[in-house]
This record gives sequence, structure tokens and C-alpha cells, in this order.
Amino acid sequence: MNEFEYEVDLDVRLRDIDFMGHVNNAVYATYLEQARERYFGDVLDVSLVDVGTVLVNLEIDYARPIEADESVTITLGIRELGDTSIPIEYEIRADGELAATARTVQVVADGETGESKPIPTAWRSRIESRR
Amino acid sequence: MNEFEYEVDLDVRLRDIDFMGHVNNAVYATYLEQARERYFGDVLDVSLVDVGTVLVNLEIDYARPIEADESVTITLGIRELGDTSIPIEYEIRADGELAATARTVQVVADGETGESKPIPTAWRSRIESRR
Amino acid sequence: MNEFEYEVDLDVRLRDIDFMGHVNNAVYATYLEQARERYFGDVLDVSLVDVGTVLVNLEIDYARPIEADESVTITLGIRELGDTSIPIEYEIRADGELAATARTVQVVADGETGESKPIPTAWRSRIESRR
Amino acid sequence: MNEFEYEVDLDVRLRDIDFMGHVNNAVYATYLEQARERYFGDVLDVSLVDVGTVLVNLEIDYARPIEADESVTITLGIRELGDTSIPIEYEIRADGELAATARTVQVVADGETGESKPIPTAWRSRIESRR
Repeated sequence: MNEFEYEVDLDVRLRDIDFMGHVNNAVYATYLEQARERYFGDVLDVSLVDVGTVLVNLEIDYARPIEADESVTITLGIRELGDTSIPIEYEIRADGELAATARTVQVVADGETGESKPIPTAWRSRIESRR
Repeated sequence: MNEFEYEVDLDVRLRDIDFMGHVNNAVYATYLEQARERYFGDVLDVSLVDVGTVLVNLEIDYARPIEADESVTITLGIRELGDTSIPIEYEIRADGELAATARTVQVVADGETGESKPIPTAWRSRIESRR
Repeated sequence: MNEFEYEVDLDVRLRDIDFMGHVNNAVYATYLEQARERYFGDVLDVSLVDVGTVLVNLEIDYARPIEADESVTITLGIRELGDTSIPIEYEIRADGELAATARTVQVVADGETGESKPIPTAWRSRIESRR
Repeated sequence: MNEFEYEVDLDVRLRDIDFMGHVNNAVYATYLEQARERYFGDVLDVSLVDVGTVLVNLEIDYARPIEADESVTITLGIRELGDTSIPIEYEIRADGELAATARTVQVVADGETGESKPIPTAWRSRIESRR
């Protein structure tokens, strides 16, 4: 049983590089969002654009810089679902080396009221079947 | 003694808004970077562009979305300096309401070797004089 | 009669700087969008977020690089309105020096059909009163 | 002889989407930059990060919006080299449909002085051999 069961390859863009010559710290959050979008599309068969989820927490530990010409791979896994919250753990690798670890928590929200609501049963079973 | 002693006003750009119609989660990290740059310029009289600091940790708790037409203010404070690390705490407000809290840790790094090195004495005294 | 009758001050963000150490070429387009938003809000009393306009053409001539610590000012003017199109000319200055000139053309579009539609009369008179 | 001899596939990121629900106009300029980087790496065997080229002109004609879930392909070609300038023409397609055409002009610049300098002979022959 592998906790990081889902893998996403990303292209580093020249625009991701900042004044320090490496991928900017904020861009890692964009990489995580991109990984989430792929996971939602592939595993849950829904688009993050269509479903209302709201990010409530983001944490990134930066291990080493990512260069412009490196290839980035993100592995992610969901350990334990809450009632309304989806906690995800990530490892970001650049050319195979660990560049960062990260954690996010999303909640499912009602589009009208913005109130958090239970994770749909169909999502829960799909997520759990991946573990 | 105020722990959030330094305040920065930021403009929300239309480009900061994402597919959900609010400021994108990754842009908060850019706002924090911008606040650090101002602090380093004003309090330490150095530019983040010139000095080698490396972000090692970032954590953001999102409290409520930020809209395109809101004005954003970030207050930040440094609680306790390490030997080589600078931990900063932030509050992000939109139109006066708390929108997020955040924490970052930076280390001072040698430009040549990338190794962390002690916080310069001049910085230490300037930072401590602000508290 | 000044053809560049409207002026907008912008903050350069550290994130705007790219691998070359200057404001990235694509960020100029973001600066222009920001200037348009201010113009629409101030002169037309509408938000670009609410009204449906679509950019159909963008042209930028880069004159000199913009550095991280410079202050940017954009002046813009509208020369001649079409039936459905709003052509805008811009000058981007950094610390007072001309950094770029630019032109955009927007059309007003129906939110439902996406078809271009006539510029509202109220906009036309407000725009013309500024010249 | 095909004038658009080089093709690049790009991933649309969720972050590329703006308040209008489509890829933001400024992001097209980032896509073009990404296409240039690939061309320089593949055809000229140099990295845009290492060589000093400066963008002097950018023009984009937007034909139709790009959605979050579309796949983007850029074809580019170089028609006629100047002494110091490299003019490139682009077509941006989304799911196979023309979404924009664009033109850029870059000059080769001396890293020290910033002065434009002749296109290296090796580049000229590699570029011309592609047509």
C-alpha cells in the first residue's frame, strides 16, 4: 500500500524562474494545484473548475531549488478523509531528487452559500479505492 | 510591544484572480514575498534581490476569499531569530477583514556554496529594535 | 488636448522579475490589463470583471528593461472608437523613462453569445469627454 | 517548404485561467516564450537562460478563447533573419483550432553592455537549415 499513489509530470516554464534563478516559491503552490486538478479529473472524474472546493491550508517544505531545465514530478496521496475536508500530501521531485514536500487541506463547499458540505459518497469511494 | 509591527499595502491585480473568481491560493505566497521585500528594504536596508536568502518553509491558513476590488494589507512580525533562520508571521487582511494567516522561514545562504550562514549582526540588531 | 490623458501607478512585484533579472515581457501585458481596469473603473464606472470585453489585439514595443526597484507609471489614451472596438494606446514609464509603448484593441461582447456588440452610449460619451 | 516548421505542445495550467474563465491574454505571451525556449534548445542547442536575447516587439491577434481543459499546440517559424534581430511568427492552436497568431522580434545582446550584436553564424546556419 503506497501512500503516494498518484503521479503527475509537470513542465517547468521559463516564467516559473524568478530573480534568484530558480523556480519561485509561490510557483510550487501552482504545481500542487495542477497536480490536484489532474487527480480530480483522473480519479474523481470531475473538474476542479466545475466543483466548488476551497483551499483552507497549504504547507510547503522546500528541500532544494528547481532549475529551469529540470523535469518535475509530483506524487500525491490522501491519507484520511474528514467529513468535509480532503487532506493531501505531496512530494515534488526535480530530475528524480526530492525538491519539496507539501500538504494541503481542501473543503467541499456549496457554490451558493460557501458553506462546507460533506464529501460526496462517490468521491469517497473512488479516493479510498486508490489506496 | 506589538508582534505584528510592520505593515504593507498591496494592490490586487486582475491577474491575481483565478477560475474561482477570487485571488488564487498561490498568489498569497507572492503577496508574502512582496511583504518580505518591503520589510528587508525598509528595516534591514538591503534588497532581497541582492542578498541570498532561501525560503525553507511556507504555511498559509486561508480564512476567507479575497475579491478583485478589495484592498489588501499585510502585517508581519518576527518573533524569535534562530542562528541562521528568520521566522516571520503574517496576517493578510482584505478590506480590513482577516483573510489569511501565514508563516515563513528563511535562511541566509552563502551565494557561492548555498550553505546557510549566520544572520548578519547588523540585521539582528535592526530586527530586534523593531520589536 | 492630451492623447494620453489617464495615468496609473503600478507596483513592480519581485515575482514580476524573470530569469534575465528584469520584469518579464509577459508581465507588461498584465500591467496594461491593470491600467485598463483602473480606467474602466474610474472613467466608465464599470468593472472589467463585470462587463464582457474581449481583447482581440495586443502589441508591445519594448524600449528598455524595467528593474525590480523601479516605480512604473502607465499613461493611456483612446484615439478613435469603432462601433464595437475600443483601441487604447499606452506608454509605460519606469522611474520616468520610457520603457515601452503598447496598443490594444478590445471589443464589447455579449456574455451569452460571445458576439461583439455596440459600445454602450454611456461609455462613448464618458470616453469622449476625457479627450 | 513550411514556414511553421517547429511545433511545441504546452499544458494549460489552471492558474492560466483568469476572471473571465479563459486563458488570460498575458499568458499567451508566456506560451510564446516557452515555445521560443524549446526552439532555442532543440534547434540552436542553446538555452534562453544562458544566451542574452532581448525581446523588442510582441504582437498577438486573439482569435478565440482557450479553455482550461484544452490542449495547446504552438507552431513557429522564422521567415527572414536580420543582422541582429530574429523575427518569429507563431500560430497557437487549442484542440486543433486556431486560437491566436503572434509575432515577436528578439535581438541578440551583449550581456555586459546590453548592445545588440550580430546573430552568431552557427545559429544562422541552423535556423536556415530548418526552412
